[in-house]
Amino acid sequence: MRIIRFVDDHDIKRWGHDLHDDTAALLEGEVLTGLRPGTRRAPVARLLAPVEPRAILCIGLNYRDHARETGQPLPERPVLFMKNPAAVQDPGEPIRLVPAFVERPEVDFEVELAVVLGRAARDVPVETALDHVLGYTVANDVSARQVQKHGGGGQWVRGKSYDTFCPLGPALVTPEDLPDPQALRLSTRLNGEVMQDSSTAEMVFTVAELIADLSTGTTLLPGTVILTGTPHGVGFARDPRVFLKPGDVLELEIEKIGVLKNPVMRW
Amino acid sequence: MRIIRFVDDHDIKRWGHDLHDDTAALLEGEVLTGLRPGTRRAPVARLLAPVEPRAILCIGLNYRDHARETGQPLPERPVLFMKNPAAVQDPGEPIRLVPAFVERPEVDFEVELAVVLGRAARDVPVETALDHVLGYTVANDVSARQVQKHGGGGQWVRGKSYDTFCPLGPALVTPEDLPDPQALRLSTRLNGEVMQDSSTAEMVFTVAELIADLSTGTTLLPGTVILTGTPHGVGFARDPRVFLKPGDVLELEIEKIGVLKNPVMRW
Repeated sequence: MRIIRFVDDHDIKRWGHDLHDDTAALLEGEVLTGLRPGTRRAPVARLLAPVEPRAILCIGLNYRDHARETGQPLPERPVLFMKNPAAVQDPGEPIRLVPAFVERPEVDFEVELAVVLGRAARDVPVETALDHVLGYTVANDVSARQVQKHGGGGQWVRGKSYDTFCPLGPALVTPEDLPDPQALRLSTRLNGEVMQDSSTAEMVFTVAELIADLSTGTTLLPGTVILTGTPHGVGFARDPRVFLKPGDVLELEIEKIGVLKNPVMRW
Repeated sequence: MRIIRFVDDHDIKRWGHDLHDDTAALLEGEVLTGLRPGTRRAPVARLLAPVEPRAILCIGLNYRDHARETGQPLPERPVLFMKNPAAVQDPGEPIRLVPAFVERPEVDFEVELAVVLGRAARDVPVETALDHVLGYTVANDVSARQVQKHGGGGQWVRGKSYDTFCPLGPALVTPEDLPDPQALRLSTRLNGEVMQDSSTAEMVFTVAELIADLSTGTTLLPGTVILTGTPHGVGFARDPRVFLKPGDVLELEIEKIGVLKNPVMRW
């Protein structure tokens, strides 16, 4: 099922599926505790991020092609950092640049497969790890590179946690419609030009391996979102470098999930 | 007010205050949306962590005496990392060591003043930053040092996020009972021996400065807990080094808040 969260024509937040002609079949309940079919369709005025994350766990350097372009060795274990949960942005809504990032551009895009956990996970083996997955969506791990590298004493959280720096969407696709998360083409277009174009087959650690590893001695709560790393082609590793500026439009696409489109604006 | 969260003799979770003789005056409602006086007292069977954090933001190297002992320069801006929200442990309950940390001890203690935000904060000036504080409690930023330094590609999240690695308590003390967070003695005793003994006056960045800085372009949601850094005396910087082992008992004390006591056990 392709689950969407949206605002209807009365400005009410809804869950739905079967989106077409700007209407969706309603789903009742809450995504983490269980959705059940409703009895009618409703107009979709605006899409929302399909989850309000309990926590956002992020993996660094998890694509072979991205490790190569940044000149870093492949990690022996997944590199884990986090984003502030308030960084989430809805599909179609702007990535906002504070004045300092307009004056001295440094903000970058990263297309990532986002994994939403529906059940708590702790010490789960690789073999059953995907049983904890509620669904998949597209994430943009927007990153202020100077802050990431030099503004946090080497810790990446701050440069990754500005408001609007975690667009999520457009839909939450459940595992029955996406049985193999390691065979998905994913790409970024900036103002129509392809910047990233790779496959989740390039991941160093698979989604199942990530869930198993991250849950070692550590409970991953329902609603946890795992951003599984980005492939090659990010702006700071390009020659010349490419950074986001007001007026840009980003389209991040993952096969079987869809396109996450966000404009870039100044605050 | 000294707010506590606890389990009563019917195993029901309660809010209360005025704890004495193992009973407390009940408070109705929820701490983030507003507590109001109840009409009776209830037995306190067991204390709980006084907040379920929306997010746990942590500051590194925020005490002058701790920066000295680790041989690091004072940071120009606060060093920000995060802990997984499931790491919270209740007062009196064990800090659990997975087998690897029993075989090769590396787990360390860090007493910290924890600041709980009651109102969302974004771009708040230093002058009004403390208006966003709901209260203060004691935190132990338990840290697996080898994992922190070598097991996360330089990112500290993993070594700080094991289950039980964030004891919080024993009470949430509101600002009217704790008007100056920069004049509090804080200490750690391990099996009765003093390991840390300093003052929040040693902070590089004050609580108000931290809230102002962390909220720059970034919304800090209600229920966010900020761990404000630890003073000198941590185990890995001692000679000889001191790491936690099963059977240990930690008592972390902050003036005007109380003692956060946790035993150490194996899983």
